[in-house]
This record gives sequence, structure tokens and C-alpha cells, in this order.
Amino acid sequence: MTTTIAWLAPVCALIGICVAGGLGKWVLSQDPGPDKMNSISLKIQQGAKAFLMSEYKLLIIFMVVVGIVMAVALSPITALAFVTGGVLSAAAGYVGMHVATRANTRTAFAAEESVAKALTVSFRSGLTMGLCVASFALMGLSLWLIALVFTMAVGVDLNTELMNLMHDNIGMVEGFATGASAVALFARVGGGIYTKAADVGADLVGKVEAGIPEDDPRNPATIADNVGDNVGDVAGMGADLFESYTGSILAPTILAVTFGAYGYFATNDFIWAIVTPVVIAACGIITSIIGLFAVRTQEGADLHKALNRGTYLAAGIEIVVIFVIFFIWNSSTSTAQPIYLFGSVICGLVAGLAIGKITEYFCSDHNKPVHKIAEAAETGAATVIIEGLGTGMMSTIAPIVLVAAAIIGAFFFGNMAFPEAAAAGAENGIAVGLFGVGLAATGMLSNTAITIGVDAYGPVADNAGGIAEMSGLPEEVRDRTDALDAVGNTTAAIAKGFAIASAGLSAISLFVSYQATMHHVLPNFELSLTDPLIVAGIFLGAMMPFMFAALTMGAVSRAAHAMVEEVRRQFREIKGIMEYEAEPEYDKCVAISTSSALKEMMTPGILAVVVPILIGCFNPAMLGGFLAGAVATGMLLAIFMSNAGGAWDNAKKYIEQGNHGGKGSEAHKAAVVGDTVGDPFKDTSGPSMNILINLMTIVSLTFSPLFITIQMML
Amino acid sequence: MTTTIAWLAPVCALIGICVAGGLGKWVLSQDPGPDKMNSISLKIQQGAKAFLMSEYKLLIIFMVVVGIVMAVALSPITALAFVTGGVLSAAAGYVGMHVATRANTRTAFAAEESVAKALTVSFRSGLTMGLCVASFALMGLSLWLIALVFTMAVGVDLNTELMNLMHDNIGMVEGFATGASAVALFARVGGGIYTKAADVGADLVGKVEAGIPEDDPRNPATIADNVGDNVGDVAGMGADLFESYTGSILAPTILAVTFGAYGYFATNDFIWAIVTPVVIAACGIITSIIGLFAVRTQEGADLHKALNRGTYLAAGIEIVVIFVIFFIWNSSTSTAQPIYLFGSVICGLVAGLAIGKITEYFCSDHNKPVHKIAEAAETGAATVIIEGLGTGMMSTIAPIVLVAAAIIGAFFFGNMAFPEAAAAGAENGIAVGLFGVGLAATGMLSNTAITIGVDAYGPVADNAGGIAEMSGLPEEVRDRTDALDAVGNTTAAIAKGFAIASAGLSAISLFVSYQATMHHVLPNFELSLTDPLIVAGIFLGAMMPFMFAALTMGAVSRAAHAMVEEVRRQFREIKGIMEYEAEPEYDKCVAISTSSALKEMMTPGILAVVVPILIGCFNPAMLGGFLAGAVATGMLLAIFMSNAGGAWDNAKKYIEQGNHGGKGSEAHKAAVVGDTVGDPFKDTSGPSMNILINLMTIVSLTFSPLFITIQMML
Repeated sequence: MTTTIAWLAPVCALIGICVAGGLGKWVLSQDPGPDKMNSISLKIQQGAKAFLMSEYKLLIIFMVVVGIVMAVALSPITALAFVTGGVLSAAAGYVGMHVATRANTRTAFAAEESVAKALTVSFRSGLTMGLCVASFALMGLSLWLIALVFTMAVGVDLNTELMNLMHDNIGMVEGFATGASAVALFARVGGGIYTKAADVGADLVGKVEAGIPEDDPRNPATIADNVGDNVGDVAGMGADLFESYTGSILAPTILAVTFGAYGYFATNDFIWAIVTPVVIAACGIITSIIGLFAVRTQEGADLHKALNRGTYLAAGIEIVVIFVIFFIWNSSTSTAQPIYLFGSVICGLVAGLAIGKITEYFCSDHNKPVHKIAEAAETGAATVIIEGLGTGMMSTIAPIVLVAAAIIGAFFFGNMAFPEAAAAGAENGIAVGLFGVGLAATGMLSNTAITIGVDAYGPVADNAGGIAEMSGLPEEVRDRTDALDAVGNTTAAIAKGFAIASAGLSAISLFVSYQATMHHVLPNFELSLTDPLIVAGIFLGAMMPFMFAALTMGAVSRAAHAMVEEVRRQFREIKGIMEYEAEPEYDKCVAISTSSALKEMMTPGILAVVVPILIGCFNPAMLGGFLAGAVATGMLLAIFMSNAGGAWDNAKKYIEQGNHGGKGSEAHKAAVVGDTVGDPFKDTSGPSMNILINLMTIVSLTFSPLFITIQMML
Repeated sequence: MTTTIAWLAPVCALIGICVAGGLGKWVLSQDPGPDKMNSISLKIQQGAKAFLMSEYKLLIIFMVVVGIVMAVALSPITALAFVTGGVLSAAAGYVGMHVATRANTRTAFAAEESVAKALTVSFRSGLTMGLCVASFALMGLSLWLIALVFTMAVGVDLNTELMNLMHDNIGMVEGFATGASAVALFARVGGGIYTKAADVGADLVGKVEAGIPEDDPRNPATIADNVGDNVGDVAGMGADLFESYTGSILAPTILAVTFGAYGYFATNDFIWAIVTPVVIAACGIITSIIGLFAVRTQEGADLHKALNRGTYLAAGIEIVVIFVIFFIWNSSTSTAQPIYLFGSVICGLVAGLAIGKITEYFCSDHNKPVHKIAEAAETGAATVIIEGLGTGMMSTIAPIVLVAAAIIGAFFFGNMAFPEAAAAGAENGIAVGLFGVGLAATGMLSNTAITIGVDAYGPVADNAGGIAEMSGLPEEVRDRTDALDAVGNTTAAIAKGFAIASAGLSAISLFVSYQATMHHVLPNFELSLTDPLIVAGIFLGAMMPFMFAALTMGAVSRAAHAMVEEVRRQFREIKGIMEYEAEPEYDKCVAISTSSALKEMMTPGILAVVVPILIGCFNPAMLGGFLAGAVATGMLLAIFMSNAGGAWDNAKKYIEQGNHGGKGSEAHKAAVVGDTVGDPFKDTSGPSMNILINLMTIVSLTFSPLFITIQMML
């Protein structure tokens, strides 16, 4: 029976966990270097652990409250699923950070030997988290899905009634995704505030006022800055991708269950449709592991190429595997042509790839946009800001056009795959071809494990550089870690493109699931753009990302302000810091970042959960408009803020390379202003947007039974 | 017969034109002062006229091309209406600027005598344009409407067939509005680029580099700067309000005709529904004139109060008049309760008023947001920018919530007014209650004449100050003109709130007219939020305002750059400027502003017209989503950019008042960066957004017959 294939998912997830365990063990078995280095790493470990523990304490309270609400308003099983989603996401983040904060000194020590060795250490540390994220997510998700399928359908043939039963119980999978999304939002926002408060605080007083270099041990905020890299770029990013990965697998699954409840799928196709997303994801874990082995490289070879080879190899195998899956499905059915779904996946992949290339074009210091910002720096900070904002806004055009085109293309192929279902759905105003759109998102993120690896080794290398600086290692070590940091930027940009595109596609799929779910119970439920309530909903939804950006930017600015005051105080009150005679109170700065981040992450996080529920209780159709508006502006702000921030960052670096007067010139000072504005743009507000829109959509879907109950009571 | 009431509109418009003529004549008959002052004014007149003439030449080409397309693709009458709309808007702008560029020196000369006299001169100059804008718009619009009604329905009773005929010919009124919108977009964008290029150029080199005060005659860009005030804040603003005023009257009219074609209105109600918007507007012109007389003030009295008294008196009378109109309609029908529409109007007024107050809260230097930006200036330019952007984004929340609430409220009352029609419409998925939403927009803008007066006298006073400075008048004259500039800011803020809210409400009404028009001919036409094409359309539409903002901000930055180079060149090459021994080449700077503005306004303007038409030809449903997305983000960016710009401006002024170190401090320098970034925000990109969304909506509506033809051919 086809459902047994679903067991592939937990099995592959288990393999992934074992490999992650092996990699992590290998990393930890490396030499952490002399005491001087290790003791710095130890401080970072303590700071990061302390923050994560405090964060998790708050998250537990949040999860318990929301869990109780869910248990009462929805069902205890949904609440349980919610908790597992949150716990697994937190666990993946914890493991990733545990290894990363230990890999930093090991990478620095390895860099003394060779850059290739350092790459291996840092990349394996990244991959440990990558595999943990993907495997934990797939394990939880697939077990819940199997529970759902088997409770309902074990031993008997599926029929429409059973499909309906599944639809009624889909909450257990949705709850899992909601838990993952909620943790992701808090982790991203909290981590983003933490890291930027420390970064801006350290730079403003240390670099600008006191004139000491970055990562100088005399700077009291320097440990907090390095902790920030870990809680923001490692744990935060891990939770982020845990969330989008879960969402991308779940989007087509939920659509399939929903369409099944309408009876659009033949039994055989229905099972395949539910099983395919998790199977694609399961294969992705294996191809990521294969990619890992391809990254092995000889001393002196081109590291950049080796790294890319691994990623591209994994992607190439995965595409073939996806084709094979559709081919087998196609051979086993006569009621559909699932092979066309491969077209949907290709649409998604092409769009994601192109968006990555465009992101690179706008942010790289080899291209015109960044050069123009650098040139504008000659007439001062104001023109840098105007040019950067303009560049960021301009950079939204192509990605949005590509996402729109991918949606239309994937939908077209989805319709071709299920011609009869598409025709039946059209009569009900339900777009069955969207299953293809959902699968496109799955395909794009199926190699998440290795892409996280490429992403997450950056902060490890960054930290290694910091430790090298602080423990006074020779300059060539620092140069090597800096070079490491630069390697793989291309691959990271492409991963970013995939993340944006897949967030858009998943959100639409979930959004349509919401409408189909509501419509299934309330036949009058429609989302017509001419309903004033829905238009009002679109306006309110479109406003949410702006509010969210304002809140998170304000949080960074408040937290950075507190950090600036503290660093200034230490320089003033602790005599002998500058002469290396007294050690600054690193822990005070760590405490400030921790408490600010925790305090400031609550309001935006809670609003993201509560607002959609309130609107849904008031009017579920208005919530439909709300979600559409939020997805549209959320994507726009995500692209705009990330790219503007990236472009400012690289314009500053471009000037530092000696252009337009170089370091210390007036132009450089102006570019630093741009870079500082860009910090919360690209590391706090921008990256939270994808999570925000996914969270609001999945919360709406999960709470739809409550909205239905309220509507029925009226 | 009720239709005769419609003649009230052209009659009132004629009265308005006569009063405007009288006021203009009075202003021109004032003493322009000694030659030294008048010659400066003359240079401004020449510069402004030269720009307007070049702009109009380009606009003529544009109008001819679009007119020919319209004549071929739609109908010659629509093309003719399009041309009249454009010509009347341009004419109103021209007259307003003609008077304003002559009122400047007269205001300056009057200010030597007393501030009250100066107020009278500048306010009457503003009112001349205000009355011209409202009267020209109402004249053109009502004559086309009367032509429509009378060609179809003269002498016979209206029946459903005739209503259909009207609907088929509604293009003539839509064409008029399209012409007005197109001219408004070019005038706003062109004027906005002109004024900010000159302003930023004059400030960056003159104030910052050369250290000479604002409006100093030694600054080569100073004439261009003063010309800019006129072409941007007078002619541009006039065309802008001509457009929104036309849109607000037309929105309910088109809805009424569309609903009439569906047979939702009884004959009697139908005529009333068509006539009411123009009658409300007609009464608004008269109440504005009454308000003008109330502004008369004794020497030494509180000018601010006198000005407000005029505005509030006009508004008060207008509300009573609107109630009376609904009351009469209510008494003459048994098929509806139109008195409820008064509730719709009140919803709009309350929202507009509240938005104005909120705008004031976020931008005024008496409140926390501006104080916080000023405080952030102490830690440098980067924090000023972050805080300002955050403030701007935060300031979107309340206005969007209010607009959403106004839509829901006005819709609710609209449904109460036509219970049977609402029930019939609901079956077709058409929200008849939206007629109330459209009327709410009409009500808000009905006093446009006097609100323009309050808005447009600001730049005259500003110019007068410039002339006073350049011709070396005593400082107290400059103080008086500065005081004048400050009076009436409150009223202007409220007018701004009305403009934003009414743009949102009009856009929705027109958007629903679009859907209803398409649906009327193509019964399968639906705008379901779950159609992937429509979702893709929402994404693309939401992106348009971002693209538009990027283009216009880039344009300002390029034009300002050219200006900076030119001013630097003159300081370098013309010996003796600084010693007052040689006169700078003012005309060269004027030429640079002119040519940059004209070159740069074309791309965004043409895109705004062409993109919706292309999407509509491809798929009219997708265009529906496109418009919804564009309206939502357009409103958001309009509020965000205008308020951020206003807040930066006032934070700088707050510091100049002696806070946080005062003028010349580091904090002041940081605040100047914010203000410079805010310039294109609040005077170019922000104010163009309302026009952009209205233009794209009305273009779609006007070209809907073409889209229908294409769909039928497929």
C-alpha cells in the first residue's frame, strides 16, 4: 500500500539525526585550542546558553497559554501537536547553537593550520544544525501525518467519508506547524534584536567613539556581539528555516486533504498526494548527506567550488528523484497525469534561482546598484539613505514578478495534472491546480539541510575571527576566517531567493486551504474582492508588516541605546580598560542584550498571533482579505528591507576597499550611516517578515474550527 | 423633474469662477512693491511659466497619443472627454500659478504694512486657485454628466433600457476623470522633482558648503527654489486636488449608473443617486465662498482663529446642506431610506478628521514622536533615520484602521438606505451599500475650494519670504511671512487627512464599479481571492507603489545631483558672487530643474497608465487583484512617506528652536540628514501615491470596454 512509503520520512529523518550526531561529535572532538581561546569561547557559550534558556522560559509560558486556549477552543490533540512543533524547533536551535558556540574556537584553531581545515570544521558545524533542523521537522511532521492517516484509514480502503474524517482532524498537523512558526517568530525577532543591539552598541561606542577595532577585547560589548551572532544568525535562522521547511511540506499536504474532503481526488491519487510532499522532503535529507560527502576537498583546491559542488550535486540528484517520484505516481494512476507536477516544481525552482541571482545583483559590490550607493556617499549620508532605500524598493520588482509568474505557471501545470478535479473545483470556485503551487514550494526547500549548512557556517567563521582577534592570534588567522566568511555567499544568496519564493507560494497554498476549509462547512463562505469587509481586511492585513517593521526597528533602536549607555559607562568608570589593565564587564552587556531582546520580542510576537484570531472571530471572510494583504506587503517589505540592508553593507565594504576615498574618508562615514540603518533592516525586521506571514496564515488555518463554531452560533 | 437640479452644478461652478475672477483681480491690483522686489518676482514668474509651458507641451503629446488610442479602442467621445479633463485641470493649475507668482511680491510688500494685510493677499491668492480648481472640475464633470443624462433620457421616463444605455456611455464621464488624473500625476511628479531638486541643491551647496542663509541672492539656485515652490506646491497640488475632487464626485455617480444598469434602483432613486454627488459638490462651492467672507478680520485679531473660523463655518454649513439634500430625497421616495446615507457621510467625515489629528500628532513638534527623533539625533544620523522610518511606519496603523472602519460603517449605512437593492445585489455578489462609501468620499472633499485656499497660500507666503530676503527688506518682514507660513498648519493637516481617507474610499468605489461593469457583460467574471491569477495580480499591484517610489526618489536624487554640480561650478567659475559683485546665472539652475523634472516624470507617469492596460488586456480578473493590491500599499506608502518626511522636518525645526544643542550642533547636523531624506518622501513620492492609485483605477475602468472586447474575442 502506498501509505507505507510515508514511513520513508521518519526513517530518513532518523538517518539525518544519526549523521548530524556523527558530525557534531566530530566537531566537538576537534582541538579547541589553548586556554586563552577556549575561555573566550566559553564566555560566548555561557552567554548564548543563558539567553536561550531565558528565551525558552518565556516561550514555555507562551506555549502553555496558547496550548490551553487551543485545547479548549479546538482540541487537546491540536494543542499537543502545537507543543511538539515548538519543542522540536527549539531543540533543533539548541543543538545547532550548542555545536556552533563550540565550533568557533575550534575553527579559529584549525585556521592556524589551514583554511581548508577551518572550512571543514565550520561547515560541519553548520551541517549539524542543518540536518537537525530538517530531520527534527520531518520526524515530527511525518509522525503526526502517519498518526492522522493510520488512525483514520488503517486497513481499510479510503473512501470519501474517511477523507472527510481526515479533514476534520487535520488540526493535528496544523498545530505542529503553528508551534514551529510561533517559536520561529520569537527566535528570529528576539535573536535579531539581541544581535543588532550588541552590534550597533559595540560599533557606535567602540569603533566610532573610542576608535578601537572590531572585536577588540577592550570593548565591553564584544562578547555580547559574538553571542549575538549565535543567537541571531544560528539559533534564529535555524528556527526560521524549521518553520519555512515545515510550512513548505505542509502546504500541499493540507491542500490535498482539503481537496480530498471535496472528493476531487480519486482514492489512489489522494494517498499519493498526501504522501508525496513528505517523501520529497525525506529524499532531500539523503541528497543533502550525499552533497556533504562531495564537499570533501584536497588541501589547496578551490574551496568555493567545492562548496558549490556539494550544493549543486545535492540539488541535481534531488531534481532527478522528484521526477522519479512523479513518474512512479504517474504510472500507478489512470485518473490523473501527475507527471505535469514536475513542471510546477520546475517553475518554483527557476523562480527561486532567478530571485537569488537578482538579490545578488542588487547587493553585491561588483554591480551598479552598490556602486551608485557608494558614489552617493560622496554627497553625504542623506543621499546614501535615499539611494539605498530606492535600491531596496527597486529590487522588489523582479522577485515579485517572478513569484507571480511561478504561481501562474505552477498552477497551470497543477491543472494539467488533475484535469477532472480542476474542472470540478472551478465550479465551486476552488483552484485545485494550487496543489502544484504548494508542491513547488516543497521542491524548493527540499534540500534545506545542506542550504542551512552553507548559511550557518558563516556565523561560526565570524565568531572564529572574533576569537582570533580577542586572543591576539596572528593576523593571517583573521584573514583566513574572513576569507571563509566570504566563501559561499553566492550559495547563500540563492538560498535566500528560495526562502522568499517558497514563503510566498506556501502562504498562498495555506491561504487557499483556509478558504476551502471554511467553504466546506459554510457553503456561503466566499472571498470576493468586492466585499467591503474583505477590502477592509486587505487594508488591515497590508498594514500589519508595516506595524511589525516599526515595532522591531524601534526595539533595536531602544536596545542599542541602552547598550551604548552601558559601554560608555564602563569606559568612563572602569579605569584601565584602554590600557588592557582591567577587564571590562562583558556580562553586564550580555545581560542588557538579553533582557532587551526578551522584553521587546513579546509585543510583536503576541500581536502576530492574536490579531488574526480576533479578526477571524469577528468575521472569517475579513480574515481572508487580511491574510492576502499581509502576504503581499510582507513579501515586499521582506525583499525591500533585506536588499536595502545588504546593499548598504556592501557599499560600505566597497568604500573600505579603497574606493571614493576609502576608510576614514567623509564618504566612508556617510556609508557607515547607511550600514547602521541597514542593520535592523537586514537582520531583524526583514527576515522576520516571512515568518510573520506564514505564522498568521497557519494560525488562521488552525483556528478555523473556532471561527466556524462562532459563525454557526450567530 | 429631478434632473433639472443637476443644473445647479454648472451654475454654482460659474458663480465660483466669477468669484475666483474677482479675487484674482483684487490680488493683481495690489501694489507689487518697488522694482527691486518686483524684478525678483518677475524672474520667478518667467521660470514658472517656462516650466509649465514645457510641461504642457509634453502633456499635449501624451494626451494626443492616449486620446488617439482611446478614440480607436474605446470611442471618440471618451477621447474628447479625456482631453477636456486634462485641459481643464491644466488650466486651473495655470491660473492658480499665474496669480500665485504675482501674489508673492504683493504679499511681501503688504507684510511691510501688517501681517493681516499680507494674510489677506496670500489667502485670496490661494482661494483664487481653490475656486478655479473646484469650479473648473465641477463645470466639466457636470456638463458631461448632463450631456449623458439628457442625450439618453430627455423628455422620457427612465426605464431599465435607458439605464443600460447610460451605463454603456458612462465612458464620457470616466474619460474626463482619466484626463484629470493623468495630468495630476505628471504635474505632481514633475513639480515634485523640480522643487526638491532645487531645494536640495540649494541647501547642500548654499547652506552647508558655502554657509550662506536660505534664499540668499548669492545662491544661484535660489530662484529655481522659489519657482519650485510654485510649480510643486501650487500647480502640482492644484492638479492633485482637481483629480481627487473629480474622483470623489465621480465614484458614487459611476456606482449609481452601474447599479442602475443592474436594475437595483427604482427610477426615481436612480435619478437622485446620479444627481446627489454633483449637487453636494455644487453646494460645497457656495459654502466655501461663504467661508471666505468669514475670514475677514480686524487688524490685530487672532489670524489663526479667523482662518479656522472660515473653514469650520464652511464645513458646518455644508454638513447641514448635505443633511437637507438627503432629507428631501428621503421625502420624495418610498422605495428607499436615503436619509441613512447621511450616516455614511458622517463616517467619512469622522475618519477624515481623526486621520488629520493623528497626522498632526505624529508630525507636530509638540508631541512625543518628533521629540524622540530629535533625541535620537544625539546619537547620530543613523538613529535619526531609523527612528523616523519607524515613526512613519507606526503612523500608518491608526489611519488604516480608521479607513477600514469608515468603509465598513459607510457600507452599513448604505445597505440601510437601500435594503431591497442590497438584498438583490448580495445574490449577484455586488455590494450596493458601497454607494454610501462613495458618497462619504464626496462629502469629505465637497469643501475642496476653501481647503485648497488654506493649503495654497502657504507657498505664496514662503515665496514672499524669499523675495523679502533677496531684496534685503528688514528682518521683521521676513518674520511676518514666516509667521504667516505657520498659520493654518492645523487646517492643512486635517485637509491632508481628508485627502488620504477620501482617496481610499473613492478608489474602492471605482474598483467595485470596475468589477460590476465587467460582471454585467461577462456573467462569469468574478474576483475571488482564491483565484491564483488574482493573487498574482495582488502581488504585482502591491509592488507598483514601491516601484513608483523608487523611480521618483531616484529622479530627485539624480536631479539634485545635477543641481549641486551646477551651483558648485558657478561658485567656482563666476568670480565675485560671494562679494555681491557678480550676479549668479539663475536661469541655468532653472533650466536644470526644468529639464530634469520633465525627463524624469515620463517613465513613472507612462508606467502608471500602461501597466494596468496591459494587465487588463491579458486578464481582466488579474487586473482586479492588481488594483486591490495597489490601493492597499499605495495608501500605506502615502501615509508612511508623508508622515516620516513631516516628522523629520519638524524634528530639525525643534532642534533649531534650541533643543538638544540647537542650530549648528552635531544633533542638528544629524537632523538635517533626516530632513533631506524626508524631502522627496513628503513632497515627491508620498503625495504622488494617492494620484497613482486613483489613476490606475480610473484607467482600468475607462478601458474596461476594451478588455471586454478582447475577452469576447477569445
